[in-house]
Amino acid sequence: MGNIHDIARLAGVSATTVSRVLNGHPYVSDEKRAAVLNAADQLRYEKNINAVHLARGKTETIGVILPFVSHPYFGTILGGIAAAAEKSGYKLMIVQTNYHTAQEIEAMDMLKLKQVDGLIITSRECPIELVEDYSEYGRIVLCEALSRDFLSSVFVNQYEAFKSALSFLKEKEKKNIGYTVLRMEGKSSISRKKAYEELFGELRSHWVFDQALTIEDGTRIAGEWASLTDQPDAMVITNDFVAAGFLLECRRLGFSVPGDVSVVGFDNHSISGALNMTTVELPLQQLGEIAFEQVISSETSHKEVPFQLVERGSV
Amino acid sequence: MGNIHDIARLAGVSATTVSRVLNGHPYVSDEKRAAVLNAADQLRYEKNINAVHLARGKTETIGVILPFVSHPYFGTILGGIAAAAEKSGYKLMIVQTNYHTAQEIEAMDMLKLKQVDGLIITSRECPIELVEDYSEYGRIVLCEALSRDFLSSVFVNQYEAFKSALSFLKEKEKKNIGYTVLRMEGKSSISRKKAYEELFGELRSHWVFDQALTIEDGTRIAGEWASLTDQPDAMVITNDFVAAGFLLECRRLGFSVPGDVSVVGFDNHSISGALNMTTVELPLQQLGEIAFEQVISSETSHKEVPFQLVERGSV
Repeated sequence: MGNIHDIARLAGVSATTVSRVLNGHPYVSDEKRAAVLNAADQLRYEKNINAVHLARGKTETIGVILPFVSHPYFGTILGGIAAAAEKSGYKLMIVQTNYHTAQEIEAMDMLKLKQVDGLIITSRECPIELVEDYSEYGRIVLCEALSRDFLSSVFVNQYEAFKSALSFLKEKEKKNIGYTVLRMEGKSSISRKKAYEELFGELRSHWVFDQALTIEDGTRIAGEWASLTDQPDAMVITNDFVAAGFLLECRRLGFSVPGDVSVVGFDNHSISGALNMTTVELPLQQLGEIAFEQVISSETSHKEVPFQLVERGSV
Repeated sequence: MGNIHDIARLAGVSATTVSRVLNGHPYVSDEKRAAVLNAADQLRYEKNINAVHLARGKTETIGVILPFVSHPYFGTILGGIAAAAEKSGYKLMIVQTNYHTAQEIEAMDMLKLKQVDGLIITSRECPIELVEDYSEYGRIVLCEALSRDFLSSVFVNQYEAFKSALSFLKEKEKKNIGYTVLRMEGKSSISRKKAYEELFGELRSHWVFDQALTIEDGTRIAGEWASLTDQPDAMVITNDFVAAGFLLECRRLGFSVPGDVSVVGFDNHSISGALNMTTVELPLQQLGEIAFEQVISSETSHKEVPFQLVERGSV
């Protein structure tokens, strides 16, 4: 740095003392330590922030793990996190994982390496026990239902939210209901199957459509749906973009929605409003804001955000 | 840290030498410096990465400045940057600015403070001269047309792209054309007005609709369009989400698209395909990937990515 001498001059201490403070050496008086940190702070706009982070043990940066940064579901959560971070003067370190465990571990190492003060995991592939191992290094918040002592969580009750969509369709006397999942072997797929079977009994496995992430996936799934001889008369599609692709492609193929097939989307993204589509509202922006508050908090906490069925014209 | 002694032991040097290397002191032999850095590297997974960053003067982190993280336009660029960063083992530090100059400056300070190795500015409010002042601290890439010696750039020719949409509508014998802008006083607004006047002569100022960012904005603009006594018979809407909101609301109000009004969107986001909407394709994912390659390159460069009119059924 060379600027160790500038800090020493400003703090009125020796360069050796500055070096000790910046290296976290324990035998420095609190008074001198404070003087060095203040001087480093005053000079920081011409210096290397890594020295300040090193000395303070704080970076005012939060890590965010996202499987896909450009997907609207995660984008909306990220928007909430970013808005709250901006208000509190924090920066975000974003890692896109594509659900690869190796990427998730590398991202969690940022916490261990003190590159970030805390970590928000919006979705993950790796086992929860592994995440828990990292909790000793700083606050970790997961955007999923959890009751672990050392991890915070903020979540929508996905099981009840999915069940509310199914119950709504049951009330509307729909009997043959299909649905989508992102990954057949994903955690939420198991709870969806359970909710389905509780309400409707046995599930025909070819009424579950997987790899449902984008508008194009919705278009593809509409084609798959149309080619079935036993078409479901209603679809619960667990994200509004996939639902939009499905609904528009069904109409393009000459089917009426509702009529030939009803659609319930998820999220209440503005696309569902523009398409007059019934959906289950998930307050994702708010969820992101809460996750940020939790990650900078000194306490572990578990918070549920409410969902709500928004009835429009696609059922 | 306390671990200064671990590094010293592993490197076979004194703690003083480690301290000197970690503080960038000049009077250390290259051999000893390398030994300390290697030892720090070997021990890094139990240590503080800030010490390593401090010593190396590198963070393998790139800063990304975005006005809105959750908007699909910037989300797609970010997706391209993130994909390229993942491949190269870099992390991203994201700052959402809402086009506030103070936030932009704070984000650029990350470069000055060596918190990031380089910076990608996807869009900005602050003057280019200010950005140029920061170029001495590391590589800066802007996602806009530029020919500055010390700043890299990657861009779509927005003027020509907008003009291609207007020319296409002129060929289709549309004479009364309106369009949208994000901000009336924005840089691109001026070039759009120029392109318009070149092709069609004087512009009626109430045919320019501003604050066009989201689907809801498109819905609102459709209402404003519908209430005009001199409605444009075609609209160039400079992002597909706004265009989708406009198109769907026009149809909901009983207007036919095309027929009563033609629509050309921008970006070729998958929503435009699902709505069979004519649009100008901007390769935003690719633009993000190129921006990342430029920011880790040792050379300044300026790259143009091509646009392309995608003719579908909304004109």
